[in-house]
Amino acid sequence: MSNWTIRTEKYEKKRIAENGNRFLIGNGYMGIRGTLEEHTKAYLPAVNLAGIYDKVGDKWREPLNAPNGLKTWVCVDGQYFGLPETEPSEHVQTLDFRRAVHSRETTWRTPKGKITIQSLRFCSMENLHLLAMEWCVWADFEASVDIYSGIDADVWDINGPHYAKLDLNEMNGVLCATGYTSEGQAVSTAEGIRLQFEAHSDVLISEQEIVRKISFSAEPDRKYTIQKTAAVYTSKDTADYRKKAISEVEAALEYSFEESLAAHEKAWEKIWASSTVTIQGDEKAEHAVNYSLYHLNSIAPRHADNLSVSARGLSGQTYKGAVFWDTELFVLDFFLNTNPKVARSLVQYRIETLPGALDKAREYGCDGAFYAWESQEGGFDACTDFNVVDVFTGRPMRTHFRDKQYHISAAVVYGIVEYYNRTGDMDILISGGFNVIIECAKFYYSLIYKKLDDVAYSLLDVVGPDEYHERVNNNGYTNRMAKFNFESAVWALSVLSEQQMAQAAKDEADCLIEKFKAAADSIFIAQPDENGIIEQFDGYMKLEDISVADLKKRLLDEKEYWGGAYGIASGTKIAKQADVVAWLSLFPNDFPKAVMKENYLYYMDRTEHGSSLSASMFAGVACRCGMPNSAYPLFMKSACVDLKGGGKQWAGLIYIGGTHPAAAGGAYKTLVYGFGGLHFDGETVTAKPNFPDNWERLRFRVWHQGKLYEVDETKQNTTIKLLSV
Amino acid sequence: MSNWTIRTEKYEKKRIAENGNRFLIGNGYMGIRGTLEEHTKAYLPAVNLAGIYDKVGDKWREPLNAPNGLKTWVCVDGQYFGLPETEPSEHVQTLDFRRAVHSRETTWRTPKGKITIQSLRFCSMENLHLLAMEWCVWADFEASVDIYSGIDADVWDINGPHYAKLDLNEMNGVLCATGYTSEGQAVSTAEGIRLQFEAHSDVLISEQEIVRKISFSAEPDRKYTIQKTAAVYTSKDTADYRKKAISEVEAALEYSFEESLAAHEKAWEKIWASSTVTIQGDEKAEHAVNYSLYHLNSIAPRHADNLSVSARGLSGQTYKGAVFWDTELFVLDFFLNTNPKVARSLVQYRIETLPGALDKAREYGCDGAFYAWESQEGGFDACTDFNVVDVFTGRPMRTHFRDKQYHISAAVVYGIVEYYNRTGDMDILISGGFNVIIECAKFYYSLIYKKLDDVAYSLLDVVGPDEYHERVNNNGYTNRMAKFNFESAVWALSVLSEQQMAQAAKDEADCLIEKFKAAADSIFIAQPDENGIIEQFDGYMKLEDISVADLKKRLLDEKEYWGGAYGIASGTKIAKQADVVAWLSLFPNDFPKAVMKENYLYYMDRTEHGSSLSASMFAGVACRCGMPNSAYPLFMKSACVDLKGGGKQWAGLIYIGGTHPAAAGGAYKTLVYGFGGLHFDGETVTAKPNFPDNWERLRFRVWHQGKLYEVDETKQNTTIKLLSV
Repeated sequence: MSNWTIRTEKYEKKRIAENGNRFLIGNGYMGIRGTLEEHTKAYLPAVNLAGIYDKVGDKWREPLNAPNGLKTWVCVDGQYFGLPETEPSEHVQTLDFRRAVHSRETTWRTPKGKITIQSLRFCSMENLHLLAMEWCVWADFEASVDIYSGIDADVWDINGPHYAKLDLNEMNGVLCATGYTSEGQAVSTAEGIRLQFEAHSDVLISEQEIVRKISFSAEPDRKYTIQKTAAVYTSKDTADYRKKAISEVEAALEYSFEESLAAHEKAWEKIWASSTVTIQGDEKAEHAVNYSLYHLNSIAPRHADNLSVSARGLSGQTYKGAVFWDTELFVLDFFLNTNPKVARSLVQYRIETLPGALDKAREYGCDGAFYAWESQEGGFDACTDFNVVDVFTGRPMRTHFRDKQYHISAAVVYGIVEYYNRTGDMDILISGGFNVIIECAKFYYSLIYKKLDDVAYSLLDVVGPDEYHERVNNNGYTNRMAKFNFESAVWALSVLSEQQMAQAAKDEADCLIEKFKAAADSIFIAQPDENGIIEQFDGYMKLEDISVADLKKRLLDEKEYWGGAYGIASGTKIAKQADVVAWLSLFPNDFPKAVMKENYLYYMDRTEHGSSLSASMFAGVACRCGMPNSAYPLFMKSACVDLKGGGKQWAGLIYIGGTHPAAAGGAYKTLVYGFGGLHFDGETVTAKPNFPDNWERLRFRVWHQGKLYEVDETKQNTTIKLLSV
Repeated sequence: MSNWTIRTEKYEKKRIAENGNRFLIGNGYMGIRGTLEEHTKAYLPAVNLAGIYDKVGDKWREPLNAPNGLKTWVCVDGQYFGLPETEPSEHVQTLDFRRAVHSRETTWRTPKGKITIQSLRFCSMENLHLLAMEWCVWADFEASVDIYSGIDADVWDINGPHYAKLDLNEMNGVLCATGYTSEGQAVSTAEGIRLQFEAHSDVLISEQEIVRKISFSAEPDRKYTIQKTAAVYTSKDTADYRKKAISEVEAALEYSFEESLAAHEKAWEKIWASSTVTIQGDEKAEHAVNYSLYHLNSIAPRHADNLSVSARGLSGQTYKGAVFWDTELFVLDFFLNTNPKVARSLVQYRIETLPGALDKAREYGCDGAFYAWESQEGGFDACTDFNVVDVFTGRPMRTHFRDKQYHISAAVVYGIVEYYNRTGDMDILISGGFNVIIECAKFYYSLIYKKLDDVAYSLLDVVGPDEYHERVNNNGYTNRMAKFNFESAVWALSVLSEQQMAQAAKDEADCLIEKFKAAADSIFIAQPDENGIIEQFDGYMKLEDISVADLKKRLLDEKEYWGGAYGIASGTKIAKQADVVAWLSLFPNDFPKAVMKENYLYYMDRTEHGSSLSASMFAGVACRCGMPNSAYPLFMKSACVDLKGGGKQWAGLIYIGGTHPAAAGGAYKTLVYGFGGLHFDGETVTAKPNFPDNWERLRFRVWHQGKLYEVDETKQNTTIKLLSV
């Protein structure tokens, strides 16, 4: 691929939040929003941390942002130069997503002459606690310059402030800011610099900031460069978080910036070796997909073996930094194919959070495991009963995401089964995976209702992925996933029975097997009607049939929520995302291709795509129906969500902006399975091109059953080569 | 009772709508709102008709108001004198509710002298199609007077206009206005007058009005009187509605006004003979109760044997003139006790509307009979899915009154069983009553769900009488009523089996008996918790506990709806009316008195009494618990709802004002069963005084098993005397 960058040459204040997402750098431990070094929290800068959360009062629990060790700004002849306050004459912001390096260059023309600042930063993929930046300033006139550089602990929070107490101090030239949360966690950011020139330096400590003031007289046209290194450690990493952050900075300062950068680039090179995608004939798609994969690679947990990824990655605190079904349904496959170790971590996260899921089921009077809709550590469900704010009254609205989106448990099971199918890793099943599968099946079993004179088993009062229709009966997707769960549990119990089990346990297992078999057979599975259409849930067909465009005309407020009891979509057939299409995308063999196509067409006209997950599910089904050209715009929509800075920004009055890993993962799935026709059957890897018209060649690598393959497809030829690793 | 009148001596424009209800006269065929003769539709006059409805476009279907044959106004020396346009110096409006006669007298002082108009009107209880009025004017100066009197066909409608076509004409001095509705019904009002003085008379016909202009020179202090007679017939009464209305007026004009009035008074005397209540020691209560009974007597259907009463009586079109559960739960007993023929009509109405209930059950995919929540003729359910308007958006809100208030069918059954218990009328059971009971049981049976590992039968996703909590599971009242229905159906089937039934039918009956027995045994009936409290529905105890006063503070708009998915009450324990108390009021032997009392106290603190039905249920339970003094204010609240012009006026943006027959009936039930301790056991009538402190003696008459009794109670003595009739 020739162009591995994204770049903006215009400075627009209104795009600061969006650029914070687009120009993000990260390494799975932390994500650094693509804001500028001088930005205060008004412009949403963040060093967003994975897997550490805090809750203040009765606000929502959310992940922590570390004190910002990159904070740097400049005054020239006593005047502040920075964005957005000082209008620049030129400004370029660039992300090299092959190297995962962020840079900016900004120039101001003043009556005295030109002033330029430049920076280059990365979030080390070699040492996951490290951030590094080279920052320089120059003027084409003689000037008195003050550079301020240090740590800003006045971090941006949505539901903060989280640091009830702050320690700011300096030791041997290393600055350190430690924040202590109300939940008793701590986050330390240490920072050190190398000065490449003579200057007078003071340390200034204010209430929430510790910075060096570096003062000097600048010669015209001479570059003055500082090299900054910051390290972040939390109390989740080590009890010595503060010491560790400082010593890490001290150690890093032993190396040159160039050396650290090289190590970082080498780590990324290795990542790209298994994850780059080549698309000949469509540079735009190639660029968009690899940019999407950059984001997935940037949030993959590598510092732990039991962490997952959150719905907005490491781009901030929206969606509470929580893990959703997005992981299993959209993101997991990318890691299964390119980095099975990360995939294992995603699965292991679910296994280790089973206790939370057991507790949640108890809370609702159910058996088994009801996984968190918005899962934080320990499986704690961060989702509240009031997840949307009513734009008309300003009141929180009672939503049923937490208590009725039962499909989450089956999604977890789906992920575990997929992981096993692709890796053959029986250990993870024996050591907990089977247990999750069985507990989730128990959960669904305890939810089932049956009418007295009926044979069918029903799941009542649920919310499917199409959240616009709350509290429906027999949601097609949910029922199908529950059936899958029952079948998986029968398998799990059979395998376990074959192991050396005590007779009592075996008897209990046999009893469960019988129940789950009956449930898998009896659970209501909607069948195509005379037109081949599968009803999304009981009564869906009686709802008002209206186009999305006409429905939109009913909006009284552009931010109003479409779902809930009275949303504009609730009484209509318009879905946020189409649950029947989601079902068919996961179980394409349930119905003949013709039925799949009818449903694709029917629900396409009735889907708002209010979720960034929607388009890729449609795209996958379109490919299955032999319509890659129909799939293409949907695929590009998914692949470009973050590139274009799109996606839905609001749910009622709640800001939901950020990056979209699930859209990225969904685009990837469409690419390899849909257009590439990638298929696994036992040990075998096959692929059958199903290209959009303009594509000539598709190349990517996949791991399967512990082996790495290179898939190389043209319209005429497919080669699948086993690589030695 | 010494005072059988209500009276207002003040004229307040803002009370016009309220006085229209308070000063209502009616005879079951029609209700004449207590507005003034000169009122145009802006002041809500109405000749509201029973049992005839119309629907315009997609507006709500509602009962018709007949063209107003009482319309009369006056001009003196060319100037209009009428209310509210011309401010009066004196004004008195009176209702004599013993005689059911409405009168008014209004005086204006002008620079030329005093002008007075006076009227007296009644809605004949002897001839139910007739209205009569004596109207006069005088001045204490010489004046040129024009009286305009005729028929105003520009009627007040909430969801009209209903008359797509109007015929206005005069024949032999009788005016006639016939309106033709969009549904093809017709309503004729004819009018004739007797002039007691010499005058010039012209008939003026405009688009929606036909009036006489009666012009004369008035001598000072001489009364000029017109006697008006109007008759109303509809196409539901006869195909010759027009002719019949005219001939009725012609026939009535043969008699003097005084003669017609005497016949009317005699009919009312007979009604009061069995329905008057005497309370010694509490004139206020005596007055309020008899006034309430006046309203019930005014709306009792006597012109048909298969009509019921509507929730707002004949006071207008609010609640669509529809029959609610109010009839069986609150109104029926008054008629059982005082006029069993009317009671039979109420029950027969339900039997004859079974086809509508069967259709409605089919509509929702259920077996059996699902009675209309808002029942019009044929059992048509006038209730829409959008019964409330959101004050914040102006949008209709999806309510679940129509589709989830399952308890209506059991209320119908309750009424039938009660009617049988009190009259011994097996004919009505054999000829249809049993069938209703069985079909309603089938309905509940088809609604039941069961969890796989549970024994209990559940009714899920229901709305109980407490409409503030929609879509709940196992509502205590609903489940208990369903159990009663199952038991009643077992009885019905057993009686039927004993009749000469074919073997096949008998076998089917036996099978149903078995199912219904199991259902009666297995349906979940909540039991008192450790504090003796019965949970209103699954999960009620987890709702926010808050006082009504504190909850009210959360209102953003005084008209906003408290219920629905997001109403201020929905997430709290605050009920519109307490379903557990409703349950205990109907089945007082289900639990020990102590439990009844605990629940009375618990739910009293958590009930808004947003329904005028609520207070009397609490009052009844308080009496059962031996707390008549606690019951007293609740009883008075029910008895005074219409007297004070109170009651809730709004549900969201929908006007729901009018008279409150259910509150009247509820007050009556509290009186005779609660304070009077009236009890029936087979053929036996017993009574045991349970008076509030200040009461000395209570006297009333009751019909039981075809016999009329006089019950006369003092604190010391009770006599029950069989009367010869």
